[in-house]
Amino acid sequence: MNSKQTGPQDESFQTGMQIRRGMFGPAGADERYAQTTDFNRPFEEVVTRYCFGDTWSRPGLDRKTRSLITLAALTAMVRPNQVRVHVRGALANGATPEEIREVLLHTAVYAGVPAGVEAFTAAAEVLKEVGAK
Amino acid sequence: MNSKQTGPQDESFQTGMQIRRGMFGPAGADERYAQTTDFNRPFEEVVTRYCFGDTWSRPGLDRKTRSLITLAALTAMVRPNQVRVHVRGALANGATPEEIREVLLHTAVYAGVPAGVEAFTAAAEVLKEVGAK
Amino acid sequence: MNSKQTGPQDESFQTGMQIRRGMFGPAGADERYAQTTDFNRPFEEVVTRYCFGDTWSRPGLDRKTRSLITLAALTAMVRPNQVRVHVRGALANGATPEEIREVLLHTAVYAGVPAGVEAFTAAAEVLKEVGAK
Amino acid sequence: MNSKQTGPQDESFQTGMQIRRGMFGPAGADERYAQTTDFNRPFEEVVTRYCFGDTWSRPGLDRKTRSLITLAALTAMVRPNQVRVHVRGALANGATPEEIREVLLHTAVYAGVPAGVEAFTAAAEVLKEVGAK
Amino acid sequence: MNSKQTGPQDESFQTGMQIRRGMFGPAGADERYAQTTDFNRPFEEVVTRYCFGDTWSRPGLDRKTRSLITLAALTAMVRPNQVRVHVRGALANGATPEEIREVLLHTAVYAGVPAGVEAFTAAAEVLKEVGAK
Amino acid sequence: MNSKQTGPQDESFQTGMQIRRGMFGPAGADERYAQTTDFNRPFEEVVTRYCFGDTWSRPGLDRKTRSLITLAALTAMVRPNQVRVHVRGALANGATPEEIREVLLHTAVYAGVPAGVEAFTAAAEVLKEVGAK
Repeated sequence: MNSKQTGPQDESFQTGMQIRRGMFGPAGADERYAQTTDFNRPFEEVVTRYCFGDTWSRPGLDRKTRSLITLAALTAMVRPNQVRVHVRGALANGATPEEIREVLLHTAVYAGVPAGVEAFTAAAEVLKEVGAK
Repeated sequence: MNSKQTGPQDESFQTGMQIRRGMFGPAGADERYAQTTDFNRPFEEVVTRYCFGDTWSRPGLDRKTRSLITLAALTAMVRPNQVRVHVRGALANGATPEEIREVLLHTAVYAGVPAGVEAFTAAAEVLKEVGAK
Repeated sequence: MNSKQTGPQDESFQTGMQIRRGMFGPAGADERYAQTTDFNRPFEEVVTRYCFGDTWSRPGLDRKTRSLITLAALTAMVRPNQVRVHVRGALANGATPEEIREVLLHTAVYAGVPAGVEAFTAAAEVLKEVGAK
Repeated sequence: MNSKQTGPQDESFQTGMQIRRGMFGPAGADERYAQTTDFNRPFEEVVTRYCFGDTWSRPGLDRKTRSLITLAALTAMVRPNQVRVHVRGALANGATPEEIREVLLHTAVYAGVPAGVEAFTAAAEVLKEVGAK
Repeated sequence: MNSKQTGPQDESFQTGMQIRRGMFGPAGADERYAQTTDFNRPFEEVVTRYCFGDTWSRPGLDRKTRSLITLAALTAMVRPNQVRVHVRGALANGATPEEIREVLLHTAVYAGVPAGVEAFTAAAEVLKEVGAK
Repeated sequence: MNSKQTGPQDESFQTGMQIRRGMFGPAGADERYAQTTDFNRPFEEVVTRYCFGDTWSRPGLDRKTRSLITLAALTAMVRPNQVRVHVRGALANGATPEEIREVLLHTAVYAGVPAGVEAFTAAAEVLKEVGAK
C-alpha cells in the first residue's frame, strides 16, 4: 500500500484506488490505471473517484451489502462482464457463494429468466476460477 | 390473519400471501387478489406463488437484505411504480430511510443519473406519505 | 375510406395508413396525422410508412400473430403506453383477451415480474374500456 | 422418456423437463440439469418448473406461437445467447425460417436496428448450423 | 447570480450549479437544491458536482453538442421525464427545434418506434409550452 | 462507385448504400450485402434504405453530429458491437478520438459506469486497430 502510487493525488482518487485494490487486487486497480491511454484515462479517473472514492466509501451500508446490491443491479441490467468483476469483489468483501446465489436467484424474478441465465453463467465461471466451494 | 382466506390453498401461494401481507398490508395482498379478474388472476397467482412464496421465503438472505437488493434491481431497471411499492416493503422489513437512500445513491452510479432521479422521486413521495423521518 | 386522404400519396404511406385505420380507427390514423406539426410530422410519416406500410403489410405472418409478437416485444421493453395502443390493435386483428393474457404471462417469465405488472395494468385498463369479456 | 430421471419428481418439474427435452434435446434438458452445481441448481429448477413446467405448458397459445413471442421478447431485450437457444426451440415447435425472419424483422421496428442486427446474426448462425434452408 | 448561494462551496459544485442555472433557470438549480431533504440532498449534490460540474463543463464538445448527445441517450433509454428537462436545456444551449427533431428521428432508428413516440410526445409538449416555433 | 451495383435500384437503397460505403468502406456496404441470404436480406435492405438512405441522408444535422449522437445512443443502450462499427463511421465522418471520448464520458453519466466500461473497451479496440492517435 505504501508502494509507489500512480494517478492523481486528490483524496477521492486515492480512497477509490484503495477500495479497488481491496476488492480486485493490484491488477484491477493500480495496474489497470497504469495501462490507461489518453483515450480512456479520464473515464478510469471518474470511475475511481466518483464510483469507488465517493460512493463505495460512504457509511450507511457495509461493503458486503454494497457488493450484493451491485450484483443485483448488474444482474438486472444484464451486464455479465461486470458481474464477473463484482463476484470477485463480493467475495473479497465477505459475501459467500450462497449469498451471491440468492442475490442472483432473487433478482432473476424481477429481471427475467434470460437475465438470470447470463448472471449465473458469468458468476459460476468466476467461482470455478477462484475455487470457491 | 385468521380471517377468511382467498385464493388457492397450496403452500407456495399461502406463504406468498402471508409475506405480501407482512410487507404491504391487506390492501397489497388479500384485497388485491380479491379484485383480480379472469384476465389478471393467473399473473397475480404467479407473482404470489413464485416471487413471494418460493423466492422471498428462501433462507440465505434476510428479508431486509432482500428488500435492499430488490430496490437496487428496480432502480437499475427504472421501474418507479415498483420502487414505490418496495420502499414500503423495505420499511416493513426494517430498512431505514438512510439505508434506502444509500441503495439508490449507490445504484445510480451503475444505472446512470436519470435512473437515480426516477428512483429518488418515487421513494421520496412514499417516505413523505408514510411520514418517515 | 374514400373520404379525403391526408399525407403523402406514395404506396407505402397509403398502405400504412390503411393498416393503422383498420387497427386503431380514424382517431389513430388520419386524424392523428392531421394533427401533426412540423416537429413530429416526419416521425409520423416514418412510422406510417416503414412500420405499418412496409412491415405490418408483409406476408409470412398473419396480422393476429403480428399483434401477439408486438405485445410480447412491448411487454418485454416495458412500454405501457404502447401496450395500451396495441391491445386495441390486437383485438381488431382478432386476438382474444385470453390470447393477450397468455402473451403477457409468457413474456413476464422472460422480462420479469415488474414488466408483467406494467403490461397487465395497461392491458386491463383497455379491456375494461372496450368492454371485452 | 422412461430412462432414469434426474431432478425433483414434482409434476411441474417433470412437465418442464419434458418440454425442454422436446425443444432442445437431452443436451438442453436432462444433461444440462445433471451438470448443475449447488450454485446454479436452484435456478435451473426454477427455470424448469416455473418457465417450462408452469408457463410453456399452459393452454391458450400453441407451442409454435409461444416460440414466436419468445423470440420477439428476446430480440426486443437484446439477448443473443437466448435467441440462439430459442431459434432451435422454434424450429422444433414447427416454426419455419421464414416465420422466424418475419418475427425478427417485425420486432426490429420496435426495438431498433442494433437489436435487429444482434438477433439476425445469432439466428443466422443457428440456421446455418442446423442446415435450415 | 450574486444572490445568496446555497449548497457546498467547492468548485465542482459551484460550477455545476452555474451550468444548471444557465440551462434550466433558478427553478432547476438553486431553488431545486434549496428544497432537498436529508433523503435526496446527497444525490442532488452528486448530480450537480459530477454530472454538471465535472462533465458538462469539460472542453472537447460544445454545450449544444452535449445537449444533442444527451437527448440521444435519453431517447434511446426511454426517459421521457428527462427528455422534457433536456429539451429546455438544449434550447438554452442554442439548439433549434429542427435540430432536436433530427436527433429524435435519428435515434428512433436505433432505439425503435416506441422510444421515438415517447421522446416526440415529451419534446412536443415542452416546445408548445415554451412557444418554440 | 461506378463498379457493378448490387441490390435494389430504388433511390433510398442507392443513397443508403452510398452512405454506408463512405462510412464503412466496401466491406461494410456492397460486400456485406452481397453475402446476405434469403434469411437476412430483407433486414439488410431495411437498414440500408430506412436507416442510411432515409435518415442519415437528411439535412438538419451534419454527418459528424449524426455519428456523435449515434455513439451516444449505442453507449446508452450498451451495444458494444455497434459501438465498434460506429467508431469507424465517426472517424470517417470527421470526428476525432477526443470527441468520441467526450461522447462516451458524457453518456456514461446518463447510462451508468458499466455502460461506459463496455463502450470505452469497444472503442479503444477500434482506435488501436486503425492506429488513431
